[in-house]
Amino acid sequence: MKIKKKIKSEILLKPIIWEDNKLILIDQRKLPHKLEYYVCHNYKDVAFAIKEMVVRGAPAIGVAAAYGLALAEINEDDIEEAYKTLKNTRPTAINLFYALDRCMKAYKEGKSILEEAKRIHEEDIHVCKKIGEVGEKLIDDGDVILTHCNAGALATSMYGTALSVIRHAFWNGKKIIVIVDETRPRLQGALTAFELKYEGIPYKVITDNTAGFLMQKGEVDKIIVGADRILKNGTVYNKIGTYSLAVLAKYHDIPFYVAAPLSTFDLKSKEEDVIIEERDKKEVLYLKDILLFPEGSDCYNFAFDKTPAELITGIITEKGVVKPNEIMKLFK
Amino acid sequence: MKIKKKIKSEILLKPIIWEDNKLILIDQRKLPHKLEYYVCHNYKDVAFAIKEMVVRGAPAIGVAAAYGLALAEINEDDIEEAYKTLKNTRPTAINLFYALDRCMKAYKEGKSILEEAKRIHEEDIHVCKKIGEVGEKLIDDGDVILTHCNAGALATSMYGTALSVIRHAFWNGKKIIVIVDETRPRLQGALTAFELKYEGIPYKVITDNTAGFLMQKGEVDKIIVGADRILKNGTVYNKIGTYSLAVLAKYHDIPFYVAAPLSTFDLKSKEEDVIIEERDKKEVLYLKDILLFPEGSDCYNFAFDKTPAELITGIITEKGVVKPNEIMKLFK
Repeated sequence: MKIKKKIKSEILLKPIIWEDNKLILIDQRKLPHKLEYYVCHNYKDVAFAIKEMVVRGAPAIGVAAAYGLALAEINEDDIEEAYKTLKNTRPTAINLFYALDRCMKAYKEGKSILEEAKRIHEEDIHVCKKIGEVGEKLIDDGDVILTHCNAGALATSMYGTALSVIRHAFWNGKKIIVIVDETRPRLQGALTAFELKYEGIPYKVITDNTAGFLMQKGEVDKIIVGADRILKNGTVYNKIGTYSLAVLAKYHDIPFYVAAPLSTFDLKSKEEDVIIEERDKKEVLYLKDILLFPEGSDCYNFAFDKTPAELITGIITEKGVVKPNEIMKLFK
Repeated sequence: MKIKKKIKSEILLKPIIWEDNKLILIDQRKLPHKLEYYVCHNYKDVAFAIKEMVVRGAPAIGVAAAYGLALAEINEDDIEEAYKTLKNTRPTAINLFYALDRCMKAYKEGKSILEEAKRIHEEDIHVCKKIGEVGEKLIDDGDVILTHCNAGALATSMYGTALSVIRHAFWNGKKIIVIVDETRPRLQGALTAFELKYEGIPYKVITDNTAGFLMQKGEVDKIIVGADRILKNGTVYNKIGTYSLAVLAKYHDIPFYVAAPLSTFDLKSKEEDVIIEERDKKEVLYLKDILLFPEGSDCYNFAFDKTPAELITGIITEKGVVKPNEIMKLFK
């Protein structure tokens, strides 16, 4: 079994590569049809990549930002300026701040930012693997598992969070089917489908509208999503639509799990401190260059939503599965 | 006020026009950017128009099908054959069968099918107006009303069902804002936005993923949707995603109304008799010519879902508002 796992992990997509003092990212804007890379030569390239979602997913954003600061160090840019620029790229995912703050701490202690970035990168790979090993025990043979957005290899350094659980279950021989929510407006479901297809894990795509009906029909056994930030009180911030799924799961008595590394936990902030990013309205109104709604239409484009603890069955971390009201157990 | 209403109704879109023995339909596939018409010369044209959603919305489908049978009469086609072809275009909306059966009855009694079709058409206009007048009393000044799919003028002969309620409230001077769910995969929210923009009624578009979050934020006062079929037990069949909204409405204690004419009620069928249409998977996997998911991806494409009576606050009909467990009061 161990050998099989090793082979499997070698075919995994690696969205973040550090090579020859350059940061090479899979350009997720080009997926699922083209596997192209975006090369960052300086921290401004990295800031652009995070803002425009060349790289996305809370853990991946953190690792990319850390390398961004390392590029500033290598290029002898103003580190404080680079820190500020990278920090302001996206407001909701906490991993961004976590990684940047760790790098700044190292810098202030006279240590190499690059070495710290590499450590964060390696830890993320290790931690996501662990999340998969821990979480796969919750999956039964034959389960149909619904996931939202992309909490996969592409959202992390490798393995993913929610998809790490799913792929470990698959690698351990459990016959599963993944229901992939398309996740409008940015259709990150296509990224999830891309990963699953790449590895031969069976999946079916649905529109976000279809999730409730499938639950009503009894065709969803479990739901697993990732997270962009988790507060001490168990509130989970994740891709818009997560909250609706959690309410539907509760109504149908379907277990609803969140998979996330400890770096996604924010023990300091209160709900009122968390900014839910509102992105460019064009993301909703257009698809590629096609205007979907009447000229001049207004819209909301919240990128994330907020799921309270009472809707969450368990949070899967590298240190085990906890109930959302037992988060502090993880930090003892 | 009466004059104002008259003027307002004159600017309404009319998706179905009978002229010079031809059926002229607004081609809803071209909306919201082009207002083009699709001319049906025979019943096969009408069958195509219903199947391919040139015309859509339960009441509009019924009226179009009736004129389709009238075209068969005029062209001296085999009426039984035409009836069968038109009946097999779409399985879920009951108005199709209601209208065709009324025309067949007239035919068998030696009456003109065209005259019966015209009657069905006029009744639909009258009935939808009545639904608006009855339902607008439920709307408060300042309400933010969420609607799903298009239950507007374009889904009927004029006025709409859910949108008839909304436009009558607006015409009566109530300051309302409409939240328009985009309604993947076919994005009928764009049709709703088109109608609202056309008449100057304030609206905001959201992805289907955003509805729950807006409810959580307390920004939705009421939900009104249309229906494709309503059973005796109060079960409502409507566009996929309706059920999710109804569960979310229940969870947030938001009134959830269904607006539909009596021709949408099916007092004979049981739940197991109703076929929920599964449409071409391309509707989900492609947008226009753009493949959204990896080549070879499989998906579900249920066009409708099923909302049980316990999630519905009231059903707005031309004969008044009833609770879903009091449907038989309408037929006394």
